[in-house]
Amino acid sequence: MASIIGAVTLAHEFIRSRVKEGDVCIDATAGRGYDTEFLCSLVGKSGKVIAFDIQEEAVESTRRLISEKGYDGIAEVVLDSHANMDRYYDGEIDCAVFNLGWLPRGDHNIHTNADSSIEALSKALEMLKDGGILSLSIYYGRETGFDERDRVLEYLKTLNPSVYTVIVSEFTNRPNCPPICVFIVKLVEV
Amino acid sequence: MASIIGAVTLAHEFIRSRVKEGDVCIDATAGRGYDTEFLCSLVGKSGKVIAFDIQEEAVESTRRLISEKGYDGIAEVVLDSHANMDRYYDGEIDCAVFNLGWLPRGDHNIHTNADSSIEALSKALEMLKDGGILSLSIYYGRETGFDERDRVLEYLKTLNPSVYTVIVSEFTNRPNCPPICVFIVKLVEV
Repeated sequence: MASIIGAVTLAHEFIRSRVKEGDVCIDATAGRGYDTEFLCSLVGKSGKVIAFDIQEEAVESTRRLISEKGYDGIAEVVLDSHANMDRYYDGEIDCAVFNLGWLPRGDHNIHTNADSSIEALSKALEMLKDGGILSLSIYYGRETGFDERDRVLEYLKTLNPSVYTVIVSEFTNRPNCPPICVFIVKLVEV
Repeated sequence: MASIIGAVTLAHEFIRSRVKEGDVCIDATAGRGYDTEFLCSLVGKSGKVIAFDIQEEAVESTRRLISEKGYDGIAEVVLDSHANMDRYYDGEIDCAVFNLGWLPRGDHNIHTNADSSIEALSKALEMLKDGGILSLSIYYGRETGFDERDRVLEYLKTLNPSVYTVIVSEFTNRPNCPPICVFIVKLVEV
């Protein structure tokens, strides 16, 4: 069945090719829990996924999904801002996943914002081990998200190019504000 | 050994994940033959690779490399413009690879140009089967390639979004005109 490739498929291809059993991942924006579930399926019982969301509705959705899938022993779902992620884990991580925007099927007026997103990205990039990855999907449109999109993309340009490979991918022939996918690999030049 | 990810690695990851034994590929810009060789290694003896270059030096380099690697039975190297690719193969293809710019270790003044590149891209996209892919790396810098880069990227925006997924990837935190990687998947929405 042929179909169009979207941001989720692209991000999952990138993550799947690099995350393995036993890895430690952070889902910085749990939302409905789909990425938390996906990460749990990759890291397995020897791995760990810590998911964050500031909306109770999102945390509940994610906990329910994780429970249904039998991943309770792998994922921890935290009701707090992703900007505080370093309070909940103090080791190195293999992967961090961010979706900036609104809660799917939630209130479009409640949206991630540039200040806390950039703070959280900065912490996650610091926590990444060498060879670790960060996947960031930026959703914007209607009246929201444009400022966050611009400021986050500007911030990413400032990352040290000898440590971080920042790849910004855009669906340039799609109408109506298609999401932007960012893939970052932390590597030390040798 | 950790190291920075470059355009070639990124393009090869994309191609490797989708090209398989028996596939038919076009290397639209043979250059020193590295992509022709890479494609031959993926499609094997039951596959076919047709490579084009307008510079004799490039065609000779590519033929030599292919011969050294034992891929003579797989690759055909043609001294002609990629804009004429449809004269050399009239079936559907699985993959096309383009590198726009100058010949590596060659004369920087001899450069692909927007008109023939866009004509060749258009033919390759037409020849792709559903599910087929096109990888395009755009090199530019010094005084050359900026016009071609801009016109090619503008052209790609005009492709039908229900048929072609066009993903333009940029290394946004690198200085000095890093190459732009474009990945296209031809798919019919179902």
